[in-house]
Amino acid sequence: MSSCVIPGSFDPVTNGHMDLIRRASGMFDRVTVVVMVNIRKRGVFTPEERMDLLRAACAGETNVRVERWDGLLSDYMRDKQEKTVLRGVRSAAEYDSEMIAAQANRLLYPGMETLLLPAGEGQAWLSASAVKEIAAFGGDIRAYIPQACAEEILARMSK
Amino acid sequence: MSSCVIPGSFDPVTNGHMDLIRRASGMFDRVTVVVMVNIRKRGVFTPEERMDLLRAACAGETNVRVERWDGLLSDYMRDKQEKTVLRGVRSAAEYDSEMIAAQANRLLYPGMETLLLPAGEGQAWLSASAVKEIAAFGGDIRAYIPQACAEEILARMSK
Amino acid sequence: MSSCVIPGSFDPVTNGHMDLIRRASGMFDRVTVVVMVNIRKRGVFTPEERMDLLRAACAGETNVRVERWDGLLSDYMRDKQEKTVLRGVRSAAEYDSEMIAAQANRLLYPGMETLLLPAGEGQAWLSASAVKEIAAFGGDIRAYIPQACAEEILARMSK
Amino acid sequence: MSSCVIPGSFDPVTNGHMDLIRRASGMFDRVTVVVMVNIRKRGVFTPEERMDLLRAACAGETNVRVERWDGLLSDYMRDKQEKTVLRGVRSAAEYDSEMIAAQANRLLYPGMETLLLPAGEGQAWLSASAVKEIAAFGGDIRAYIPQACAEEILARMSK
Amino acid sequence: MSSCVIPGSFDPVTNGHMDLIRRASGMFDRVTVVVMVNIRKRGVFTPEERMDLLRAACAGETNVRVERWDGLLSDYMRDKQEKTVLRGVRSAAEYDSEMIAAQANRLLYPGMETLLLPAGEGQAWLSASAVKEIAAFGGDIRAYIPQACAEEILARMSK
Amino acid sequence: MSSCVIPGSFDPVTNGHMDLIRRASGMFDRVTVVVMVNIRKRGVFTPEERMDLLRAACAGETNVRVERWDGLLSDYMRDKQEKTVLRGVRSAAEYDSEMIAAQANRLLYPGMETLLLPAGEGQAWLSASAVKEIAAFGGDIRAYIPQACAEEILARMSK
Repeated sequence: MSSCVIPGSFDPVTNGHMDLIRRASGMFDRVTVVVMVNIRKRGVFTPEERMDLLRAACAGETNVRVERWDGLLSDYMRDKQEKTVLRGVRSAAEYDSEMIAAQANRLLYPGMETLLLPAGEGQAWLSASAVKEIAAFGGDIRAYIPQACAEEILARMSK
Repeated sequence: MSSCVIPGSFDPVTNGHMDLIRRASGMFDRVTVVVMVNIRKRGVFTPEERMDLLRAACAGETNVRVERWDGLLSDYMRDKQEKTVLRGVRSAAEYDSEMIAAQANRLLYPGMETLLLPAGEGQAWLSASAVKEIAAFGGDIRAYIPQACAEEILARMSK
Repeated sequence: MSSCVIPGSFDPVTNGHMDLIRRASGMFDRVTVVVMVNIRKRGVFTPEERMDLLRAACAGETNVRVERWDGLLSDYMRDKQEKTVLRGVRSAAEYDSEMIAAQANRLLYPGMETLLLPAGEGQAWLSASAVKEIAAFGGDIRAYIPQACAEEILARMSK
Repeated sequence: MSSCVIPGSFDPVTNGHMDLIRRASGMFDRVTVVVMVNIRKRGVFTPEERMDLLRAACAGETNVRVERWDGLLSDYMRDKQEKTVLRGVRSAAEYDSEMIAAQANRLLYPGMETLLLPAGEGQAWLSASAVKEIAAFGGDIRAYIPQACAEEILARMSK
Repeated sequence: MSSCVIPGSFDPVTNGHMDLIRRASGMFDRVTVVVMVNIRKRGVFTPEERMDLLRAACAGETNVRVERWDGLLSDYMRDKQEKTVLRGVRSAAEYDSEMIAAQANRLLYPGMETLLLPAGEGQAWLSASAVKEIAAFGGDIRAYIPQACAEEILARMSK
Repeated sequence: MSSCVIPGSFDPVTNGHMDLIRRASGMFDRVTVVVMVNIRKRGVFTPEERMDLLRAACAGETNVRVERWDGLLSDYMRDKQEKTVLRGVRSAAEYDSEMIAAQANRLLYPGMETLLLPAGEGQAWLSASAVKEIAAFGGDIRAYIPQACAEEILARMSK
């Protein structure tokens, strides 16, 4: 049985994340989405909120589950006996930083692998920060976030 | 059950290819290595020779098999009902060309996915053409090709 | 009145070229598409064939005309008193080579400008060589070439 | 008639900006320089100061005008019925982020175009932040800012 | 006699820095490591602490000395009559920003040169910020910092 | 005493090469320019012609000498007990390929170092192939080749 882990901030989940998650769920038997919590960086959404939004968005994917981790990704992988990380990549510049992170992780936990999946057609721009930027200027973000949790995201952002 | 396809010229197989194949065989239930034959580009080794070398090199990997294809990769994937291609990447420039090829393939066969795996530590330089370059100038390539087929490669290249 | 020049091999014209030409014709008053002839590189189509295909494809664009040049781009620009070149770009690697070519051209003809337009959504893969590659393996290229000259392209390629 | 929009922070205007603006004014009939105001990011200069400096610097360019916008660029373009954005680019890494921004803008306002102009010879380093860095350490920035507003910039920065 | 200058934050020194310093000390007769102090950016370690750690780590290198500078790098080079800067580079994206910085420095101090040295095998990931990140999550960083000052670094970071 | 090796095809030497050589001669006590001969790739100029042109161009640089090598660069370095290679780099894409070549060379000859020097201002475009391209179309290349051997280059190219 094959499995992969998709780590991220998910602050909040976007349709770009969902594209990555759905494509992963078609390639691997089991997919774990992990909300990585960085105590020094506060997000717009709390870790609990981010997990709730992700769970609502992933409700239809039977082989996907959502977790949380407060630490290094390599420790998560060792602790859970996972081997494969999957990361979406949107440009050559992002490739460079992912390649460096992958190298660090292999030192911290030998055998850990990082697979990269180029962003889907027309999705390269779709990051959580781009969505927050559009919302901050009063733009309509409904087309860029999962329908299943759109109301919660909009309600929280309008506060 | 998960599977992936590793396409390439393999003219000839190097330890860089074997690193990619072995890492893939740990992540997926089944791995198919496909020698892509391009009638307009003659290699140093014939397609049959490349397959024999690959089979010798992969003999120890129980979930790896070797095939050959004379056509478009997207046609192979559709024909064999495979979904996931795995490609090694060695630099940001290579990422760019792989991302463009992945996009073309998704148009030719929607649903086809291309996963990228950054080259292992110190393996970025290890391409078949680098090995042939070293051999052409009389350098010793034994450390860069699979032991299981080293004699065959050396014998063929010294002709 | 503003004008721009779109140079290229156009061997043959694809829908990627047409996307660039149409977007240019919306931004500039006049657009000149120039088939650059390189005597040392023979194409699949003759320069005359390439111009005929382009003219058929651009028939509906009233501010677009098609020309031919056997020489340096900078000499064309000086000769025709044109100032602005427009080039489509598909990746960071292509940006690098276009930036170097632009620098060379400004030395050869000071005042000449090179504007870059990122390839349209999902069009980054769509080059003439990709189309020829697909056709060479028997793939259907109809969706990737202009309808107005599809029959001519297909007839010529099947020879 | 052709026109383009050059958006930016201009905090403050540098000779790098002026090179871009002058080259644009030679290619398009009308150029609008737009000071983009981001309420969450305070600059060294106020938006009004930035506009005054730009107006002084652009006084000699008859087809250039200066405006201000407090919102999304795509909303400005729709509101003013402008179609073409022009951005200076200084490296492959910047190309990547501009290409992503261009893609986002085309989703927010279909038909909007982003043209990229590689930085002029020896100007790639010349950003407003580089100039502020040099000034912060007591360096002489006179050669890097427009003469027409140099005194105002120096007076403001020495406060 | 040849000499080079290695500027940086060194907050704190890592084995990645030491790899760069040692390789430089084999290529140049004299190497000066310069702790660049930026008053607007506070580090985890004070400038004096960073220098003490560097001096302990470089004790065995007879042609290496450690200095401090509170200002522009170009002013240091002119003041000390140094000509050559050496910078480690870890990716194509870093190359782009180093190339831009080198260009700025040549304008501020003509004749100044910037040589780039690609990170050693498997060291591309090894930055001071990566080490601090690992330590912040309780990871063991002993393998990534110089033995000669490991206790001091660990003691200071655990405060 | 410090020394560096500048390998290349030099087919023929250009002012871009001379810029690199002169900057190197200011940084190192001794500079060796090595014409690398590749038996499978015929140049426009013979190896002897390339060396003669280089020697004429470098006549004024007292610490520069010109050699020839028919083999692997790593073998040259070991044979001549040289340690440091210097390569000019013109773009992020070139950085990627140089980084890969440097890695290969360190495997073939441990301890060998490759330093990269970004192309001088406005010189990124100036390659031997660009100069040959301009000459092929009847352009004037006098400004781009060393005065000391311009007549020889022009005479040879007009044959």
